Amino acid sequence: MIYADYNGSAPICDDVKDYLIERLKKDGPYANPNAIHYLGSKTLMGMENARSICSKVLGADYNQVIFNSGATEGISHVFHSCLDNAQELGIKAVIVSGIEHSAVINSAKAYANKGVETKILPTLNTGIIDLSALESWLADYGKELGLVAIMAANNETGIIQPYEKVAELCNKHDVPFLCDTTQYIGKTIFNFKKSGADYAVTSGHKFGALTGAGILLAKDPTSLRPLIIGGGQEKGHRGGTQNYIGNETLAVALKNFEKNLDKIEALNSKRLEFEAALTEKFPEVVIIGKESPRLASTTYVSFPGIHGQAVQIELESQDIFVTTSSACSDNEPVTSKVLKAMGVTDEVGRGVVRISLGLCSPLEYYDEILDALTKAYEKLGKIKSY
Amino acid sequence: MIYADYNGSAPICDDVKDYLIERLKKDGPYANPNAIHYLGSKTLMGMENARSICSKVLGADYNQVIFNSGATEGISHVFHSCLDNAQELGIKAVIVSGIEHSAVINSAKAYANKGVETKILPTLNTGIIDLSALESWLADYGKELGLVAIMAANNETGIIQPYEKVAELCNKHDVPFLCDTTQYIGKTIFNFKKSGADYAVTSGHKFGALTGAGILLAKDPTSLRPLIIGGGQEKGHRGGTQNYIGNETLAVALKNFEKNLDKIEALNSKRLEFEAALTEKFPEVVIIGKESPRLASTTYVSFPGIHGQAVQIELESQDIFVTTSSACSDNEPVTSKVLKAMGVTDEVGRGVVRISLGLCSPLEYYDEILDALTKAYEKLGKIKSY
Repeated sequence: MIYADYNGSAPICDDVKDYLIERLKKDGPYANPNAIHYLGSKTLMGMENARSICSKVLGADYNQVIFNSGATEGISHVFHSCLDNAQELGIKAVIVSGIEHSAVINSAKAYANKGVETKILPTLNTGIIDLSALESWLADYGKELGLVAIMAANNETGIIQPYEKVAELCNKHDVPFLCDTTQYIGKTIFNFKKSGADYAVTSGHKFGALTGAGILLAKDPTSLRPLIIGGGQEKGHRGGTQNYIGNETLAVALKNFEKNLDKIEALNSKRLEFEAALTEKFPEVVIIGKESPRLASTTYVSFPGIHGQAVQIELESQDIFVTTSSACSDNEPVTSKVLKAMGVTDEVGRGVVRISLGLCSPLEYYDEILDALTKAYEKLGKIKSY
Repeated sequence: MIYADYNGSAPICDDVKDYLIERLKKDGPYANPNAIHYLGSKTLMGMENARSICSKVLGADYNQVIFNSGATEGISHVFHSCLDNAQELGIKAVIVSGIEHSAVINSAKAYANKGVETKILPTLNTGIIDLSALESWLADYGKELGLVAIMAANNETGIIQPYEKVAELCNKHDVPFLCDTTQYIGKTIFNFKKSGADYAVTSGHKFGALTGAGILLAKDPTSLRPLIIGGGQEKGHRGGTQNYIGNETLAVALKNFEKNLDKIEALNSKRLEFEAALTEKFPEVVIIGKESPRLASTTYVSFPGIHGQAVQIELESQDIFVTTSSACSDNEPVTSKVLKAMGVTDEVGRGVVRISLGLCSPLEYYDEILDALTKAYEKLGKIKSY
């Protein structure tokens, strides 16, 4: 079985698995980390140790790490912080790109009733956002902008965005910048301080930690307004008894990522080899974002005229699990909004499948996927599906 | 070691432990439950099966169960749903009781800037909310009320509130009722439909499931406005890839609860015996809420003149873990707001410790706690701490 849907959700990584089994077998500690007794303190210490590890791997200060339930919560939290009192602050617009995850686009649109217009930044055909448009919008709108939200890497295409440049521009115009790093953290090196972003988010299940645990990074945590209001946990930024077990696994998974950093380059080379071999076999094949910087682990490939879902099912029959686009939208057999924003034709857009592996996936997987994809394209090419 | 802080957080229960170890060992399924491939469907089926089990144990319809990160998120979600557009709806007040958890009280107060006044319902000396005050407030404020939020059982005292009566009154006046069942679900039988409440919340870590997983029950889910906005998960009510592993453990823990229902009565009798023996030994001792209906598992006891924290430390030296009040506030050596609302004197209030066990705790624990508490009171009584 080859699982090639890491961008959708990664399996729990071996280190986390071992950690959890050991933790469950030795039976604890289990306690409310805010309790004053020894077990509470011990639980708290374990969680704060995890925070410290996460902060180091992510290049953030310890107090910039706020544990939460995942990237979507982090995104909603940042939008809430920057836009909930938009009217009082005279905020009239928010900038997001057209290739953002629906969590970002839908969060932006939710503030329309507060008089906040969602400005959709254009994307170039390379799959990279239009920086010059951003620059002129920042100059035009200035202090009327409540937030700019741009991703570090796209979930479908794996195309890496010039987020440091975005941060520079936003900082220059003093507009908060949320960098959606959900598909970036745990796949390649991210340094929060160097990024220049005001906020960044992540979900543990994207890099081998437990589901339901994530991190919001905030340059200045005092700029946050709590979205989940509780009894003062996470220094008042995020209420509710902390998910200490989940948070511990975030640290274990990030340490595992750091341990395997040297595998990124090998994965990247092998992926490029795979893509070259595939396009040599099938010159009609389109690799989305081929000329752009991309994550080492993601290939978004289309055979125009062969429906992506047909390819996905064909691969599945060979025990290889891929998707057609993102999990949130892949039930709809139309060109994804990400591809539309890039100006990809329906001819290509309806044919895509996303192949996304993990840092520790065996490189030979690409050989097997190549074989399977060859069979699929040869079979389906005879009965082109649209 | 005796862990007697279940109201703060319960250890992972044995069934959940076994379930998780087995799941981790057989390695999956891990996938985004929203993905179209077989692994995604399998993950989704597991999670939906969990939803079905949870709905049955909690007396709710399947579609009334919304998975989230825990009770605090659920509470914030309900307040957001009922009060975010307060001004447009002409909503001017919200009713909470003085013994509510700070998650509820702080959520209510967060809407002051939207013109919503927080009305604090009085509590009788029995520790039970003043139903007649509620009735007259409901009549006085009527449609200007956005929400009534009252708990089913108090986290500190274990006193059970007349929540069905509250629901009846709220329904009569057509005001939404959030029943905070965080300390109730998993400790005693709760039937959402019978309760008459519009909303109820729970956190898995209070009854042996994984931390970071919870449920919001909504009579009419379409009345909700999403707090965490994502890609349409949980039928659009709660964004973000679902915490499917956590959600599965909710079902395992609730099944475990149902399996052990017959233990409630034995626990209750043993607790009453323990309390009787303690007050016989120390007639000065005050059992908070003695005359009121209480959870089977909770004793909130004070020896006036002996500081609760001193008792807690003394018990801890005998390997028994209790707290002084709730985890969120027990760093402050003052009478808790819950006790103040009940009219408890500082003399008594500063002396309390909370002993809270789980459904499967061995009944003999109460004998050991009685011995330890006897030693502690005898020792500390000689050097009364205030």
